[in-house]
Amino acid sequence: MSKNFRIDYQREERIGFQEVVFGASKTIDQLDAIIKDYQDNHKDTLVTRVQQEKADILCKTFSPNFYDPISEVLLVGEFPEDPIGNEVAILSGGTSDQFLVNEIYYTLRFVGRKASRFQDIGVSGVHRLLDNVEELKKFKVLIVVAGFEGALPTVVGGLLPQPIIAVPASVGYGIGEGGKVALHSMLSSCANGITVVNIDNGYGAAMAAYRIINNKS
Amino acid sequence: MSKNFRIDYQREERIGFQEVVFGASKTIDQLDAIIKDYQDNHKDTLVTRVQQEKADILCKTFSPNFYDPISEVLLVGEFPEDPIGNEVAILSGGTSDQFLVNEIYYTLRFVGRKASRFQDIGVSGVHRLLDNVEELKKFKVLIVVAGFEGALPTVVGGLLPQPIIAVPASVGYGIGEGGKVALHSMLSSCANGITVVNIDNGYGAAMAAYRIINNKS
Amino acid sequence: MSKNFRIDYQREERIGFQEVVFGASKTIDQLDAIIKDYQDNHKDTLVTRVQQEKADILCKTFSPNFYDPISEVLLVGEFPEDPIGNEVAILSGGTSDQFLVNEIYYTLRFVGRKASRFQDIGVSGVHRLLDNVEELKKFKVLIVVAGFEGALPTVVGGLLPQPIIAVPASVGYGIGEGGKVALHSMLSSCANGITVVNIDNGYGAAMAAYRIINNKS
Amino acid sequence: MSKNFRIDYQREERIGFQEVVFGASKTIDQLDAIIKDYQDNHKDTLVTRVQQEKADILCKTFSPNFYDPISEVLLVGEFPEDPIGNEVAILSGGTSDQFLVNEIYYTLRFVGRKASRFQDIGVSGVHRLLDNVEELKKFKVLIVVAGFEGALPTVVGGLLPQPIIAVPASVGYGIGEGGKVALHSMLSSCANGITVVNIDNGYGAAMAAYRIINNKS
Amino acid sequence: MSKNFRIDYQREERIGFQEVVFGASKTIDQLDAIIKDYQDNHKDTLVTRVQQEKADILCKTFSPNFYDPISEVLLVGEFPEDPIGNEVAILSGGTSDQFLVNEIYYTLRFVGRKASRFQDIGVSGVHRLLDNVEELKKFKVLIVVAGFEGALPTVVGGLLPQPIIAVPASVGYGIGEGGKVALHSMLSSCANGITVVNIDNGYGAAMAAYRIINNKS
Amino acid sequence: MSKNFRIDYQREERIGFQEVVFGASKTIDQLDAIIKDYQDNHKDTLVTRVQQEKADILCKTFSPNFYDPISEVLLVGEFPEDPIGNEVAILSGGTSDQFLVNEIYYTLRFVGRKASRFQDIGVSGVHRLLDNVEELKKFKVLIVVAGFEGALPTVVGGLLPQPIIAVPASVGYGIGEGGKVALHSMLSSCANGITVVNIDNGYGAAMAAYRIINNKS
Amino acid sequence: MSKNFRIDYQREERIGFQEVVFGASKTIDQLDAIIKDYQDNHKDTLVTRVQQEKADILCKTFSPNFYDPISEVLLVGEFPEDPIGNEVAILSGGTSDQFLVNEIYYTLRFVGRKASRFQDIGVSGVHRLLDNVEELKKFKVLIVVAGFEGALPTVVGGLLPQPIIAVPASVGYGIGEGGKVALHSMLSSCANGITVVNIDNGYGAAMAAYRIINNKS
Amino acid sequence: MSKNFRIDYQREERIGFQEVVFGASKTIDQLDAIIKDYQDNHKDTLVTRVQQEKADILCKTFSPNFYDPISEVLLVGEFPEDPIGNEVAILSGGTSDQFLVNEIYYTLRFVGRKASRFQDIGVSGVHRLLDNVEELKKFKVLIVVAGFEGALPTVVGGLLPQPIIAVPASVGYGIGEGGKVALHSMLSSCANGITVVNIDNGYGAAMAAYRIINNKS
Repeated sequence: MSKNFRIDYQREERIGFQEVVFGASKTIDQLDAIIKDYQDNHKDTLVTRVQQEKADILCKTFSPNFYDPISEVLLVGEFPEDPIGNEVAILSGGTSDQFLVNEIYYTLRFVGRKASRFQDIGVSGVHRLLDNVEELKKFKVLIVVAGFEGALPTVVGGLLPQPIIAVPASVGYGIGEGGKVALHSMLSSCANGITVVNIDNGYGAAMAAYRIINNKS
Repeated sequence: MSKNFRIDYQREERIGFQEVVFGASKTIDQLDAIIKDYQDNHKDTLVTRVQQEKADILCKTFSPNFYDPISEVLLVGEFPEDPIGNEVAILSGGTSDQFLVNEIYYTLRFVGRKASRFQDIGVSGVHRLLDNVEELKKFKVLIVVAGFEGALPTVVGGLLPQPIIAVPASVGYGIGEGGKVALHSMLSSCANGITVVNIDNGYGAAMAAYRIINNKS
Repeated sequence: MSKNFRIDYQREERIGFQEVVFGASKTIDQLDAIIKDYQDNHKDTLVTRVQQEKADILCKTFSPNFYDPISEVLLVGEFPEDPIGNEVAILSGGTSDQFLVNEIYYTLRFVGRKASRFQDIGVSGVHRLLDNVEELKKFKVLIVVAGFEGALPTVVGGLLPQPIIAVPASVGYGIGEGGKVALHSMLSSCANGITVVNIDNGYGAAMAAYRIINNKS
Repeated sequence: MSKNFRIDYQREERIGFQEVVFGASKTIDQLDAIIKDYQDNHKDTLVTRVQQEKADILCKTFSPNFYDPISEVLLVGEFPEDPIGNEVAILSGGTSDQFLVNEIYYTLRFVGRKASRFQDIGVSGVHRLLDNVEELKKFKVLIVVAGFEGALPTVVGGLLPQPIIAVPASVGYGIGEGGKVALHSMLSSCANGITVVNIDNGYGAAMAAYRIINNKS
Repeated sequence: MSKNFRIDYQREERIGFQEVVFGASKTIDQLDAIIKDYQDNHKDTLVTRVQQEKADILCKTFSPNFYDPISEVLLVGEFPEDPIGNEVAILSGGTSDQFLVNEIYYTLRFVGRKASRFQDIGVSGVHRLLDNVEELKKFKVLIVVAGFEGALPTVVGGLLPQPIIAVPASVGYGIGEGGKVALHSMLSSCANGITVVNIDNGYGAAMAAYRIINNKS
Repeated sequence: MSKNFRIDYQREERIGFQEVVFGASKTIDQLDAIIKDYQDNHKDTLVTRVQQEKADILCKTFSPNFYDPISEVLLVGEFPEDPIGNEVAILSGGTSDQFLVNEIYYTLRFVGRKASRFQDIGVSGVHRLLDNVEELKKFKVLIVVAGFEGALPTVVGGLLPQPIIAVPASVGYGIGEGGKVALHSMLSSCANGITVVNIDNGYGAAMAAYRIINNKS
Repeated sequence: MSKNFRIDYQREERIGFQEVVFGASKTIDQLDAIIKDYQDNHKDTLVTRVQQEKADILCKTFSPNFYDPISEVLLVGEFPEDPIGNEVAILSGGTSDQFLVNEIYYTLRFVGRKASRFQDIGVSGVHRLLDNVEELKKFKVLIVVAGFEGALPTVVGGLLPQPIIAVPASVGYGIGEGGKVALHSMLSSCANGITVVNIDNGYGAAMAAYRIINNKS
Repeated sequence: MSKNFRIDYQREERIGFQEVVFGASKTIDQLDAIIKDYQDNHKDTLVTRVQQEKADILCKTFSPNFYDPISEVLLVGEFPEDPIGNEVAILSGGTSDQFLVNEIYYTLRFVGRKASRFQDIGVSGVHRLLDNVEELKKFKVLIVVAGFEGALPTVVGGLLPQPIIAVPASVGYGIGEGGKVALHSMLSSCANGITVVNIDNGYGAAMAAYRIINNKS
């Protein structure tokens, strides 16, 4: 059978960044073909949500490569050597959300940008956030990750003036399982001007931040 | 037709407080008959969720009476003259939640207890809560009302050691309409040891507080 | 009873814009007291979702005033005379979404900004969007309103590089009643870097745009 | 125990096509007995959703056979040698939806029909669809597969006049997991005259197309 | 303010039928402007879901007109005098579904087609359907309306070979209120090749039938 | 630790049948202890939903025993030798529902009753039901099992006068996955006097039938 | 237009009782025509869920008649003079559920049967149920109505051996609004052999009881 | 990479008890680092929901330790030797809920408190609860665990005057799978003053009880 995909190589020209591959529901063979296609077009490939077993096999085929097992991000190619700027802060409450913090971080690295991580800011101990307010004022965009009740973006939104992108994490249990409570909580926030992406969509949050900081109009 | 209800007059003996009447789905005639039955048994009656039109008619029939149009609480009888204690604090973010704050307040008054209201504590301006922490430490139970994303109990729970009863309010819109988001957020809270009652169940929250402060075992 | 609210007058200093009042669930008396409080502090008041009957009464008490019956936005005071910039484009498919387009437009006017409306861009006739792509490239932020299946932000996101704030409208019927389908569709978009606000949250979308264009960090 | 099924061999006469077997929830033993029954009646058997392990065992027992591991379609027998017509186009956005594209394709082959696959048409790069509009006008029925936000049938429906059968794919994550968002989006489409089948029901879409192209009334 | 809509007059050329107006969420003023626009372009206007009060006012302004209070369909203009063909049968269980049967019927009339109504076919008395099977075989498309458990299309689908468009009706109560049960039941049907439209989307079902019978490719 | 359960041995006296054990969420050790307790009280034990691995181990410990791998019913003890009556008919559409048909059948055997199985009655070929109507009139209770759209009880309810217990099966996919569509469809049935049990609750359906046929009042 | 319904007059012969009319979604004109049709066939008509305004008009046209405003049941005709048997007990917790108790009661009267009402049995004062256990043992079928958490059928099911038909009432608020919690609670009951009907389906419960007590097979 | 968490060691001082670790979504490496951090600060660590495989590895690294495989609670350190008081009773229906009973019990042990377990109190045999009422009156707080329909707290709430913390268990199937029915049932309880925690949140219930019994204000 002939090739069943056609990569949108004009996307970078149209919207300023290249297509990224969603790896979760693709087979090894499908990923293999897609990465080859990128290589044939002299492009690096970023694949999100590549399970460890699949990444191990792909890393044997393609190099250079980079794989982060926590976020399951796979890069075939190399991150740009000198990331520019440091305009994005990524806030989260701790260990359980790290898979998303890393997906955001490596996606921004892929498009050539630095970011700072603040991973010890949980709303059940609000002083940890208050201690960092002055430092956080220096960034141009705040990406705020939270699972469970998803209250962190609301508290951040009442304290800081920048664009805030809230990322619900699928961390929780019982009624909070799967991240819907965090998502709905962020959408219903009584703080003003917060925007939200899909549950676990770290990649999308990074791209939304990039759309802001890359803005030349 | 003969009487289609039988009031549980032994409840006070069993669990320490008298039955309260849920007025929303009862007709004038039904409420009339129930209040008469209480009067025949020399008891005052507290009715929650009595729409204004129904209350106006009942207040013409029965006296003494008290009706709060904001919470739609109707008392046929009189509040105990000298409420004892001041062990319960009711926290909320402002005007939209007042119907619940009042339902809690008047229910506690009905069972002979004082309570203090803190109605200017919204999580989108967290300093307003922080300013009150020392004052709040004096109470034995904290009842925390919130609509929208319902984040207030989580922040309170990380700052104060008392029993916390979270009350989701049906205030919000879009995905937050009806109060489910606030309810689910409170249940999923990353703060420890918070308990929750049904949406708009101010009466239940007051009774839960009463079960704690009345505890003689 | 004493005042049951405390307006967060420090918010402007903290996050760059003043508190706005959510009118839907407040009584005339509550709104009256709040607007007076703003006037005593020499501030204009913007109230969203004020039903016509309530607005009519408030407009008799307070002046100058402005009321838009389509979006139910009430301003007690005056819009800044010379709005600066024209950095925000508001896109929608037509008549049914106008209540949101106007809420966004007047909120931006309240904070002193111009915006342009593109109200004839429906995804079931995609040429209408394609005809406007060059014009749309000139704006710094795109706010995209859609009800029914909510597909418009996805198509826009594949064509244009700016920050995109998607606003689901409660326009539709059957399974699409209430706007949840549009909301979920926008969150699940296969286009990259789109962010979303709550259903019918035109005010929030305007504030999110303002956070971007007001950014001085 | 005696046979616990009775195949509806009159279905072909009544509605023009033979019963197809849903394999997912049947055991090897159950499938074995059913296929034998078809063979005893001189009929080929098409089984959908046969997991690889089960297919491997069945292919050892029965021949001739055909198994497509991507769609998990198993044929015991042979496809008609010269499929007639080429009236159905199957549109999708790419690799992740291929399991459905193939289920549709092989089902149409089983009933003796040709179909063409257009697998590189994603709504986040709408030019790929626009490039194919003239070619697509030649088909009698369009089957449109989409996961995530499910916007593709809406855009197609605004451009082309044929019957459109939309097939939501269980491809997505977060709020879009399982395909409900795509389903609801297709049902709420603002484009006119689109019909929808169940999530992942490629077989049903093929049969719906067959009901149209086989129509002799 | 200038006109906030632009009618898609090219739609007829592209997809073979003209835009129809969704009246439920539009004001009198908005509908008035839209109908005038059509008249200025020498086109009749079909508006669906126009509440009686709005229709009464519009019928005073525009003539000739036709309004069916059961389906709330408003035509400004005249139905084509000699509808061609009689290829569509509309099946339903009785009185409660008539609002949809009529919406389908008048929409087909608007595009110049005849249709036959079979309104006494309820699945709880299956003989009424069986009595009509021979008669129903003569039609090219079957549109099947059902509320409550929505079983009728499944039984029809097992008896007849034509394209079947199932229309869930918002008729029912309790868990079946609003028509979601009928919708989900139709989507999950064990009968083959049935397609479904949104709840109460009679207009969409008519257009889907028209896409089939108008097919010239 | 001491025994953490106390079997309700008085249940048989109170309600006419003995407690049955729900095996799915119990460990081997827990089941082992419970069965021993029954043996010490000279009672047989019926355990439902015992996964094969657990059953294999338990069958090595206890005898006599009977295990049906399709329904995952485990009996420690023996079925009564001469079941009385034949008053219950179990209807279903075929192979996929057999796990429930068997759970019902063996539960009735456990309480000493015969039952007849009609497993080839699917609503997409309604003649198979019609052929059996006379035979079915002889039974006192009809238990009707269905997955997917769950239409079978509705059609049966319109044809036969006996008590009908509808059992939704967790057989289906997409929107019908897990059996909720069948459940809701059965509850919303337009046929009269049908009652429903939980999804996959074959045991409960058998007990409901037993309550009817054992009725001596 | 000709008559758009055909009453199923053979139903009584097939299943032992006559069709009953669901009045909620029918207009006066539609009900008028249906009742006349029954009268022409020398039959009484029972209509459920007839709003007061509609009943008032119909009662002026037709006599003899009976209307119960609490259950909104309308009878055109007369209840059989000497109801036979007294085999059905209807249990509920009190005033709020009376609309359902009456719908059940009058439906049984329509088919010629007596029933006894026990309306003071609420699970939050379980002694009221325990006091009635001996009396309740005398009935052949127990219909148990409950709103809120719907626990009553579970407690009844553990105490009494008869067939139990649980009827969830749309009485409650917050998460319990509309009766879904009661419905789901009854379906999930840990008591054995309880069956359930749709929310507020008093008519269906009466018919299910009738199927049991009328059983002659 | 540097440490990505910061433990909130001030929590004990603020709210009277130390942070507990949620183990389910953390890797071995993450748990290892966190436990070490506690040890470096001379604190014991309680980890909830540690799967057996992870616990086995951690128990080889850290000692002293305690692991309960039923509740998956891991203690690195030792329980206080002489727990004080015996103020908390934990009620449940039996074996299936034991995982929660143990999580509650060991959490209370960790904070130095005794508790009593009543594990044979199921609502389908209500005499088992009634037999224990006098004994239960001695406790200061009642924690009530229930799965399936979650009726136990309602019955307890009508019989006893103490604070009642209801814990829904994820035990059930069909519509009751995952514990949502029990949760919603507890929230909708017609008994007064019951509070609820998240599904399976035994830890939270223990902390809520501790907030009550530790109360010194």
